[in-house]
Amino acid sequence: MERLFDDELSHLKEKMLDMADSAQAMIGLAVKALTERKESYVEEVLKLEVKVNHLEIEIEEEVLRLLALRQPAAKDLRFLTALLKINNDLERVADQACNIVETVRFMLKEPPLRSSINISHMAQVAQQMIKNSIEAFVHHDTALAKQVCEQDDEVDRLNEQIFRVLLTYMMEDPKSITRAVDLILVSRNLERIADHATNIGEEVVFIEEGRNIKHHQ
Amino acid sequence: MERLFDDELSHLKEKMLDMADSAQAMIGLAVKALTERKESYVEEVLKLEVKVNHLEIEIEEEVLRLLALRQPAAKDLRFLTALLKINNDLERVADQACNIVETVRFMLKEPPLRSSINISHMAQVAQQMIKNSIEAFVHHDTALAKQVCEQDDEVDRLNEQIFRVLLTYMMEDPKSITRAVDLILVSRNLERIADHATNIGEEVVFIEEGRNIKHHQ
Repeated sequence: MERLFDDELSHLKEKMLDMADSAQAMIGLAVKALTERKESYVEEVLKLEVKVNHLEIEIEEEVLRLLALRQPAAKDLRFLTALLKINNDLERVADQACNIVETVRFMLKEPPLRSSINISHMAQVAQQMIKNSIEAFVHHDTALAKQVCEQDDEVDRLNEQIFRVLLTYMMEDPKSITRAVDLILVSRNLERIADHATNIGEEVVFIEEGRNIKHHQ
Repeated sequence: MERLFDDELSHLKEKMLDMADSAQAMIGLAVKALTERKESYVEEVLKLEVKVNHLEIEIEEEVLRLLALRQPAAKDLRFLTALLKINNDLERVADQACNIVETVRFMLKEPPLRSSINISHMAQVAQQMIKNSIEAFVHHDTALAKQVCEQDDEVDRLNEQIFRVLLTYMMEDPKSITRAVDLILVSRNLERIADHATNIGEEVVFIEEGRNIKHHQ
């Protein structure tokens, strides 16, 4: 029975990894849709969203089933409840990617904004943070989890910087306003993705060390 | 022992109501800071944030303790896991209120934007949605919970409308750009608050009916 429970837990972990892969791919595709200006990437993101939504429900149902059936204690209990939250964070990451492509759809109707802002870099950092937070989770790596939480400041700085540059653009050239505002929104979406990675990092510390590092940084 | 568990559950509910009250108050104060242009409201919001963060951790720890100790099944189990999520949603509502006052702080340094947009109305709807979602939770009222989910569309529409109007302002008067962008961000924060209310509404349906209405609307 304990063996069976272990199998169930690792099966659940697999599912979560599958979901994390999809969410990460969605971020990459959303930013590609923006930088390469291709509608086909938008479609791919929306297709993956359907998959992520299904996985979210499956994972949640399985966690509840195991909580009821196996009545786990201590670390297994923390693992399962943390999984509920990571599940939720990943689904929201996927949502943010969808928000990005919805904005990109509008942007594709207008000529590109010639800009020096580096939204791809910000996207890469956010994507990496999600990747690392999940890796930290899988390998019980609290050092990596804490590193993710620290990287959040970098993304906040990038977001702030992009915001300032775009404000200047708009003031210099009112024709750029709509597109600049769209980019500000995309930048906020990426910042939120980084926030979710940070939440996951905090959860990993919580599972491994049994202490809450939220609001204590 | 069952009696004790009931007491524990209702104590937990009380705490959650306390947290919900604070989160709601924060939305109201944040919008008052904006419309009445008073820094003192900003301080009040930040003070309540500390309280909400404490409550979030307390509630989470208590839920985990009860899951481990009482090993609840069926509806009690759904109640406790849903509580974990509602807890999370309320904390994020409080975060959004903090984001609003951070933006408002910048806005107070500039003269007010003479605008016909009705951000207070949007705030009221979002605040009401949080209130109703919690009421639905307390009174096991799935009809009210579903109504909250439907109201989300109204907030989305208001957000869209405010966005369009502010874009026009910026194009007509580039001096208004910074303040208009700030208002767009506040409007997004309110939209997210409505999203959290919707999440809570979905959780209530899940607790009461044991079925997931997410992604099925």
